[in-house]
Amino acid sequence: MNVFIVGIGLIGGSFAKDIARLYPKATRYGIDKNKDHLDEAKGLGLIHHQATYEELSKAHIVLIAIPVDALVADLPKILDLIQDDCLVIDAGSTKALVCKTVENHPKRRNYLACHPIAGTEFSGPSAAIDGLFDHKTNIICEVEKTAFKLQETALELFQNMGMRIRYMNAEAHDKHIAYVSHLSHISSFMLGKTVIEKEKNERDIFDMAGSGFESTVRLAKSSPAMWTPIFEQNKDNVIETLEEYIQNLEAFKKLIQDDDFKSVYNEMNNTNRIKEILKGIPLTKS
Amino acid sequence: MNVFIVGIGLIGGSFAKDIARLYPKATRYGIDKNKDHLDEAKGLGLIHHQATYEELSKAHIVLIAIPVDALVADLPKILDLIQDDCLVIDAGSTKALVCKTVENHPKRRNYLACHPIAGTEFSGPSAAIDGLFDHKTNIICEVEKTAFKLQETALELFQNMGMRIRYMNAEAHDKHIAYVSHLSHISSFMLGKTVIEKEKNERDIFDMAGSGFESTVRLAKSSPAMWTPIFEQNKDNVIETLEEYIQNLEAFKKLIQDDDFKSVYNEMNNTNRIKEILKGIPLTKS
Repeated sequence: MNVFIVGIGLIGGSFAKDIARLYPKATRYGIDKNKDHLDEAKGLGLIHHQATYEELSKAHIVLIAIPVDALVADLPKILDLIQDDCLVIDAGSTKALVCKTVENHPKRRNYLACHPIAGTEFSGPSAAIDGLFDHKTNIICEVEKTAFKLQETALELFQNMGMRIRYMNAEAHDKHIAYVSHLSHISSFMLGKTVIEKEKNERDIFDMAGSGFESTVRLAKSSPAMWTPIFEQNKDNVIETLEEYIQNLEAFKKLIQDDDFKSVYNEMNNTNRIKEILKGIPLTKS
Repeated sequence: MNVFIVGIGLIGGSFAKDIARLYPKATRYGIDKNKDHLDEAKGLGLIHHQATYEELSKAHIVLIAIPVDALVADLPKILDLIQDDCLVIDAGSTKALVCKTVENHPKRRNYLACHPIAGTEFSGPSAAIDGLFDHKTNIICEVEKTAFKLQETALELFQNMGMRIRYMNAEAHDKHIAYVSHLSHISSFMLGKTVIEKEKNERDIFDMAGSGFESTVRLAKSSPAMWTPIFEQNKDNVIETLEEYIQNLEAFKKLIQDDDFKSVYNEMNNTNRIKEILKGIPLTKS
């Protein structure tokens, strides 16, 4: 079996590790426009061979794990190049535009639109982690548009990787994920910006960061090259979530200004139930 | 040596564990208005004896780790009750009001105003952690107002606990900590609120939370009883940080609305240097 990984970074590299463990006989090919990453991936043993799009005709499975602007640009080309029995999956954080882009592609049935909810704030092949996908959710969109046989191949693979499957339509995915993921990233980036702007002495940030800042700002270490096209593709949903978030912050500020600390307490107390909601989420090893 | 711990929760309990390890001959007394916590602390071996304020006359060291409204109310009473050679330290997240409150107290020199930058989102005696304070920063305010002999006692204790010391005036402390800690908590609480309000199906939150949400919202699990008086005492600084944070969010939203994704990229890229600033921060075991 030939497995091609397009984009051999954190996600592609962790996928490669799973393939190596689960399918030791499979040959792993890496494609990446970043030659250093390709060399690093080879050096780390994530892939057997460096490859190019021209070689995709021998692929049985292709995973695409590149920024979503590149995904939308390249998925049609990749579908053009594969054989009829090849499964193409992706790991993009937005799903509506990519599904729309290939809806009339003659090989649409070879593609399964996926979003594995897994990752860390780090990037590149050296950020790849064993078991990154274990016990994580994989959101699959428009499953009915993928050939049944290839759905089966994908589900067996995901099951072996330890993933739980959720089915959604692409629009619902993009709306939900804007709240639970995209907004978290913006709140974290802007928190980092606010603190950096104010605290000219970086030593002060460092010394006080144990007070909760370091976890809240963790996502502000994320890759701008990955996140910019996500916000672009999910613009409308992201703006909506941001507006609601800003409204909530304004309302909280007003309660403090008005010395209404009973309501400040209640706001926090009501939100405490996030504890129960999140109970049992496996933490990403890093 | 008799060590009294007023408020035997996460901070007080972790302090008790350090005392037990570093000064095995010391007798540890717990005072807490929550009888269940006292029983739990005794059961966990955090304290030898349950005690009351009346017994403070036999204390050599008193740590106060209670919400900052209770701290401001009780510190003068505690100072009234102790002997002349007793050291009183606190762990409050605000420093200006408490310092102001006791500035003219006849036993002001027995008190050292501290803020150990350590904790987790959990609370109560069962949340106590071995080595919570190790390699963490302890901010000491108005050190010159404490008797030199008692400064020495405190510094030896903190050194044994593995803490790094930073000296600040109380107003500077409250201003800095508003940015690095208090704002993080509000951004996290409001993120949790925004997502809970929108996502009526809690299963959706759970399934997607691996995407960064769970770390960004971690602080929204924090105790409202602890945080409400912090925001009240640090009202002016907190409002200022919130306004700057909201401005930054508005500006980022506008960049997205205007399709200025080059600037969106630059904003995130500039904030990425938080990576370098935070490098080397020891993560809290939890």
